Amino acid sequence: MLAAWNTSEADEASDKASLLKGMILPEYDERGALLRPENFETRTFVGTSLGITYSTDPPAKGPGDFHNVYIQPEAFKYYVKYGEFPEKTLFVMTNSPASRKAGPDLINGRGHFAGKATGLEVSVKDSNRFDESWAYFLFKTAGPRRAAKALPTGTCYDCHAEHGADDNVFTQFYPVLEEARKKEKSK
Amino acid sequence: MLAAWNTSEADEASDKASLLKGMILPEYDERGALLRPENFETRTFVGTSLGITYSTDPPAKGPGDFHNVYIQPEAFKYYVKYGEFPEKTLFVMTNSPASRKAGPDLINGRGHFAGKATGLEVSVKDSNRFDESWAYFLFKTAGPRRAAKALPTGTCYDCHAEHGADDNVFTQFYPVLEEARKKEKSK
Repeated sequence: MLAAWNTSEADEASDKASLLKGMILPEYDERGALLRPENFETRTFVGTSLGITYSTDPPAKGPGDFHNVYIQPEAFKYYVKYGEFPEKTLFVMTNSPASRKAGPDLINGRGHFAGKATGLEVSVKDSNRFDESWAYFLFKTAGPRRAAKALPTGTCYDCHAEHGADDNVFTQFYPVLEEARKKEKSK
Repeated sequence: MLAAWNTSEADEASDKASLLKGMILPEYDERGALLRPENFETRTFVGTSLGITYSTDPPAKGPGDFHNVYIQPEAFKYYVKYGEFPEKTLFVMTNSPASRKAGPDLINGRGHFAGKATGLEVSVKDSNRFDESWAYFLFKTAGPRRAAKALPTGTCYDCHAEHGADDNVFTQFYPVLEEARKKEKSK
């Protein structure tokens, strides 16, 4: 007797493929370095933070940087539906200085907003390419589009593996994603 | 001689219509109250802030709330291309408490992230419906979907009109939108 997928497995595979159709994929140069993601600002935003750093140094003066995190809309929908990040998931986190404007702009002069992004931290899930499935990259936003090599596993991967709530991802800081997943599960 | 549009005006009108095709519009109930926006999390994110308030009261303890601001992707593209917000533009701003998690979640225990949203502040541009073009609404996120009446002009409109950098909108806090517009203009 031939082994065969049952219908529900075939349906799921087909649904997954259909969810991912058209997803912008990570791009690499001929050395295997990741090209800086572009036009990610219209992708799905999953969370923001101010002043959270990986550093164990004493607190810097000031509030620190805003981090805004984006994911491809197709990977967002896939995670919400299936509870896992698909291959080729690409997270972009922007680093923006916490800005203030004096006078009327801030109305009462308190608080900070995320200014223009100066740097990007990027993670990619690509098991064919990276032994640990996920790899991590740093980019500056200024200047021409450049490629970056994956950082050594000790720099990012280890901490993500240890502290990320789900599949190396800090979903605990992404309530937009977590709430959408919860809502889907409760259907 | 008949008055006629010239070709470039016709082309622009057609391009604008095409940019706005499929845009999710504000929904009202039979009393003219705005229905709470839903599924806005996958729309285009334009900016975040922490601790900026409209209040002139003395600073509260703690960092305040995160505000994350979304706009329909079609209205985003329209603004980037034409430098104006189209009719039926709908901004959603979420209010989220600044959260901390002890221990490993925050790695070093510093900084805050935007927790689950508890309230929405919404603005809509709809000149057929509102004398001042823009109207403002408040929603809670909990519970069934409700409708809200536009707030009196003294509550939101006046301040937006006075301090918003462009067309009653606080674009000065939305570098994502401003940078995309600048890039388009420099083409």
